[in-house]
Amino acid sequence: MGIINDTFMLKNKTAQKLFSEYAKDMPIIDYHCHINPKEIYEDRKFDNITQVWLGGDHYKWRLMRSNGVSEDEITGDADDYTKFLRFAEMLPKAIGNPMYHWCHLELKRYFGYDGILNADTAKDVYELCNSKLKGGDMSVRSIIKKSNVKMIGTTDDPTDDLCWHKKIKEDGFDVLVAPTFRPDKAVNIDKPGFADYIRKLSEVCKTEITNLDGVKKALSKRLDYFCELGCRATDHGLDYVVYEPATGFAVDGIFQKALGGGHITKHEADMYKTEIMLFLGEIIAEKGIVMQLHYGAQRNTNTKMFEKLGADTGFDCVSVRNCGEALTGFLNALEVKGKLPKTIIYSLNAGDDRMIDTVLGCFQGTEAAGKIQHGSAWWFNDTKSGMEAQIKSLADLSLLGNFVGMLTDSRSFLSYTRHEYFRRILCGIIGEWVENGEYPADFAALKEIIEGISYNNAKKYFGL
Amino acid sequence: MGIINDTFMLKNKTAQKLFSEYAKDMPIIDYHCHINPKEIYEDRKFDNITQVWLGGDHYKWRLMRSNGVSEDEITGDADDYTKFLRFAEMLPKAIGNPMYHWCHLELKRYFGYDGILNADTAKDVYELCNSKLKGGDMSVRSIIKKSNVKMIGTTDDPTDDLCWHKKIKEDGFDVLVAPTFRPDKAVNIDKPGFADYIRKLSEVCKTEITNLDGVKKALSKRLDYFCELGCRATDHGLDYVVYEPATGFAVDGIFQKALGGGHITKHEADMYKTEIMLFLGEIIAEKGIVMQLHYGAQRNTNTKMFEKLGADTGFDCVSVRNCGEALTGFLNALEVKGKLPKTIIYSLNAGDDRMIDTVLGCFQGTEAAGKIQHGSAWWFNDTKSGMEAQIKSLADLSLLGNFVGMLTDSRSFLSYTRHEYFRRILCGIIGEWVENGEYPADFAALKEIIEGISYNNAKKYFGL
Amino acid sequence: MGIINDTFMLKNKTAQKLFSEYAKDMPIIDYHCHINPKEIYEDRKFDNITQVWLGGDHYKWRLMRSNGVSEDEITGDADDYTKFLRFAEMLPKAIGNPMYHWCHLELKRYFGYDGILNADTAKDVYELCNSKLKGGDMSVRSIIKKSNVKMIGTTDDPTDDLCWHKKIKEDGFDVLVAPTFRPDKAVNIDKPGFADYIRKLSEVCKTEITNLDGVKKALSKRLDYFCELGCRATDHGLDYVVYEPATGFAVDGIFQKALGGGHITKHEADMYKTEIMLFLGEIIAEKGIVMQLHYGAQRNTNTKMFEKLGADTGFDCVSVRNCGEALTGFLNALEVKGKLPKTIIYSLNAGDDRMIDTVLGCFQGTEAAGKIQHGSAWWFNDTKSGMEAQIKSLADLSLLGNFVGMLTDSRSFLSYTRHEYFRRILCGIIGEWVENGEYPADFAALKEIIEGISYNNAKKYFGL
Repeated sequence: MGIINDTFMLKNKTAQKLFSEYAKDMPIIDYHCHINPKEIYEDRKFDNITQVWLGGDHYKWRLMRSNGVSEDEITGDADDYTKFLRFAEMLPKAIGNPMYHWCHLELKRYFGYDGILNADTAKDVYELCNSKLKGGDMSVRSIIKKSNVKMIGTTDDPTDDLCWHKKIKEDGFDVLVAPTFRPDKAVNIDKPGFADYIRKLSEVCKTEITNLDGVKKALSKRLDYFCELGCRATDHGLDYVVYEPATGFAVDGIFQKALGGGHITKHEADMYKTEIMLFLGEIIAEKGIVMQLHYGAQRNTNTKMFEKLGADTGFDCVSVRNCGEALTGFLNALEVKGKLPKTIIYSLNAGDDRMIDTVLGCFQGTEAAGKIQHGSAWWFNDTKSGMEAQIKSLADLSLLGNFVGMLTDSRSFLSYTRHEYFRRILCGIIGEWVENGEYPADFAALKEIIEGISYNNAKKYFGL
Repeated sequence: MGIINDTFMLKNKTAQKLFSEYAKDMPIIDYHCHINPKEIYEDRKFDNITQVWLGGDHYKWRLMRSNGVSEDEITGDADDYTKFLRFAEMLPKAIGNPMYHWCHLELKRYFGYDGILNADTAKDVYELCNSKLKGGDMSVRSIIKKSNVKMIGTTDDPTDDLCWHKKIKEDGFDVLVAPTFRPDKAVNIDKPGFADYIRKLSEVCKTEITNLDGVKKALSKRLDYFCELGCRATDHGLDYVVYEPATGFAVDGIFQKALGGGHITKHEADMYKTEIMLFLGEIIAEKGIVMQLHYGAQRNTNTKMFEKLGADTGFDCVSVRNCGEALTGFLNALEVKGKLPKTIIYSLNAGDDRMIDTVLGCFQGTEAAGKIQHGSAWWFNDTKSGMEAQIKSLADLSLLGNFVGMLTDSRSFLSYTRHEYFRRILCGIIGEWVENGEYPADFAALKEIIEGISYNNAKKYFGL
Repeated sequence: MGIINDTFMLKNKTAQKLFSEYAKDMPIIDYHCHINPKEIYEDRKFDNITQVWLGGDHYKWRLMRSNGVSEDEITGDADDYTKFLRFAEMLPKAIGNPMYHWCHLELKRYFGYDGILNADTAKDVYELCNSKLKGGDMSVRSIIKKSNVKMIGTTDDPTDDLCWHKKIKEDGFDVLVAPTFRPDKAVNIDKPGFADYIRKLSEVCKTEITNLDGVKKALSKRLDYFCELGCRATDHGLDYVVYEPATGFAVDGIFQKALGGGHITKHEADMYKTEIMLFLGEIIAEKGIVMQLHYGAQRNTNTKMFEKLGADTGFDCVSVRNCGEALTGFLNALEVKGKLPKTIIYSLNAGDDRMIDTVLGCFQGTEAAGKIQHGSAWWFNDTKSGMEAQIKSLADLSLLGNFVGMLTDSRSFLSYTRHEYFRRILCGIIGEWVENGEYPADFAALKEIIEGISYNNAKKYFGL
């Protein structure tokens, strides 16, 4: 009764051909994820499937909470099998949810399980997975290798010493594990802990930071360091796109107030963030690497659970705000200076897709085919319908053939099957266009498009 | 040439099986509607189809206006047949509109008419319907019984004495007719008539209301009364979600100003509404019943017609506003106090679907599987494509299996066929997933899902 | 390997029948476009396909820029064949983009080319097209005639003397070429050049304009003139819908400040625009012609390119703003006075579709079936998926049968094939509804609907 077979998500012959002949065997560039480089270096192994699946995956936690499961049996003290069982009991109700597909893809590809997971099969699946996890080929590095991954882009704070990246490199692991520069803590002047963070940055840079110029120099120095260790991209998590330009003098005053513990208004924060983001854009452009902008999440909406479990535990949601004018304002300010880097834009609000896809065309350049990109459907949109919508909107309004494609954005080492999921959906869409007569059965062109979006475009775009 | 047959909206074998074996014969819980309990008590009969169809249905009026029909022949003095004829003439142009399906479903199920309605058939259909309406089995109670309805949730003002509900109960009608508490008039401090309404509330409660505390006590007392008479839910019609917390002292001042006839600013109104809605949320949670939030309509946009015909006559439209931050703020404030009731959220702006479906997961609890729900596609969205979008978004981002499903929201006794329409569409979607290999042909699981969404989930959720 | 054949975009038999029997041979009313009447009068011929295709088409330029082509080879000094080649090289990557279909439709219908255009075929296609362009039947008038066009609505400034329209008329060209009144420059008080424009308007009207009343009189006089020359409609390009009513006295002050070169705030501009738009609405209603409202574009986002190439060169994007309350406020203000003209609303933000489609029903009237219309998918939305979304939303929420249908909005004489593209998509949608059993196979009704949307509705609506 399993659902994962050769034609999964591939409704017609053309789609099947595109996937099996062009997409399937292309390697993976996972240019944006949240896995821990320490675990790669140490080649971690897992004790049981609950640890792998339910240890840190807030997608799964949310679904369990939506089934009325108590927190004790989700993130609390209940035993590992009970947690797994609660998850398995819930799963059949997740009809139409990507979790249903993700789980069964992982069970098939990594554990060879062909059936479905539910309350009845939970015990058997639990034992099967745990016995496989004890085997020799289920360490982190083995999983990465067998997933045909060529590059992993982690997500790292500017103050990080990147010691694990260095050790991995020294160790001769033949998959590129590159750091990604994510300076959010230096940008979020209005979040608690900002002044402390700046002091930490001072220490790491071994220079006291007392003014705006100081932060800029420190960030620039750290970006140099990241690039020495192979950094190909930065990442910026913005609640909303901000563009509120002000004089350096004014922003310096705001910065010093924040450093001294003063209260920062929303308007002041916007001015500081704009200034720093513009500066970062410039130095990113100078490095020739890629700037990723993620916006549109409302985070930590549930105070009670935030106090209990902290951030990134499943209490975030989509935020719907008008960001178009700020987005073009920001990109234009960099373009005017000739310092607009290659940029990938992601919004958690899928209602912005068409806006973003028309913004792309306003700021392209000769540095790359598809210099300004609309990132693959992000987070809550990283679902079958979300990916279809993003791909179709991109095709409709821009040049799909230049798309840099999929990334996992994941905290888990079993998520590489999401590249397969993405490629199947991509081939499904294109196969349908061809069989509908909307695109010719020109397999030379189709091969280039499919292989490009699967792998080649990202390889070129990130300079690998 | 009729369109209503066994496979209507059911494109494949699985969909047909799901509908005929699981969905079709499940009873109906119509937990939110606007029918008049007096007409149930009196077991009203209708003189002709124009009375039933065109007496109060602003959906139909809007379509006739869109066809250039004069108001005289819609809500005015023209004779009943002329009105019906104008409607029938328009209907073929309503291709792709749910009205086309609703009408033909009602003609088939209640009048046994198999053909289509247009200018040519208008006369025959008119006569057929009128002759059936004269028959013994077309009274209100007969229609309800033959529609397999188990529960009806009416919509009632806190000042209502619920005499018809009492009489129906005493009368031994074996369908549960429960009142729903809708305190909008006590919330809308900025609408004309607020002070008068508070005085009316005073009278009903037999205590003079002079301050904020007084309104709260009065509302609490009336909710007690409603619950004694079987109330399972409240309903709140909000132009937009409001969350502007203020001190009780400040809100008391605003209330007293309004009571004295003073001008209330938008900001003041927002503070008062927030305070009252938070209070209502708390007492609803204490009762263990369900809070329904409806927002996103812009009402009475056409002044000329409002002055002529009053409210709810077809001059409302979708309002597009950013409500996400207010929505999470409001739910969180209740959650922090441990007083968040079971809640169903409806937005008239379908662009909010994905935002709402991600908000759900932030506030779930153990009181119910699917404690926080995204209500079935509301009003203008209560169409084939609107329902498909709501169901698919809910499945994509939350747990479809726990959905409490359909309600008519109707003023008409012939609308129960919309539950059939909804179930066909639901089975159509799920049947397609199964035949596409996106969900296994696990009919035990499918039965539970379909029967749950059709009936069992709502039964449990509303404590019936 | 070509894609343009009889069944292009027509997936089933019913769709094919609807298109070939009803849609295909209906004439074209292109009621809104940007072609140059001078070129019609002079019956211009083109030297080569680059001139026709890449001379002014910013859709094509955007795609080339998205492929990393240098501006020199797009709008710059590169030779015509190189430009064409760069375009042809890019085209296969535009899978899923309407450009792929538009180009191949034009190549087939106007040049008889059956194959596909790519780097390999570029040379042959270039030569084929250029040789055809030299032939006798490829002048502007010949193209218009062979495209079965009955009416063309150009877009003209109030100060235009419409000399080419007069000459075309005198010349006895049997296609109606009507001017459209587009007074944006008299509305945009906050744009540079406003005072100069008012002076130009003064000169054209031979009266000095010194106050608000003066502009109104001048615009009214020019609209009279346009109507004498066959004007059927006005057009208004609004960044966003504005409704900020103020006293005539206040607005007069704002106008005089602007005339004197003073700075106009956003709020002042909104008040002036509201006043002028309301005035225009009234005089348009008095003429009995059609008011077209276009809003939701963010224009000239790229300063560097604006300074290099000017406006309308491919640097605009979708703007997402809340306009619902302003839209209903504006329409209502006219309706209250009994001066609401026939109106077509277009938003570049497809997220507004459902809002607009519900606004329509609030302001209909007896002057026309479908007095208030939702315009065909505009600009970036004028794509297969964009048109499908607009048509389906319109059907879902209003009366599709009264839709006035397609317009090219184009600067090119080869764009008439977009009417074919639209009709195929329309027949595809309706054919699917019929074969799915959602609408009966009532071909008399279907013929009326298809012929209506293709031609008859617009003919009636524009009084032709």
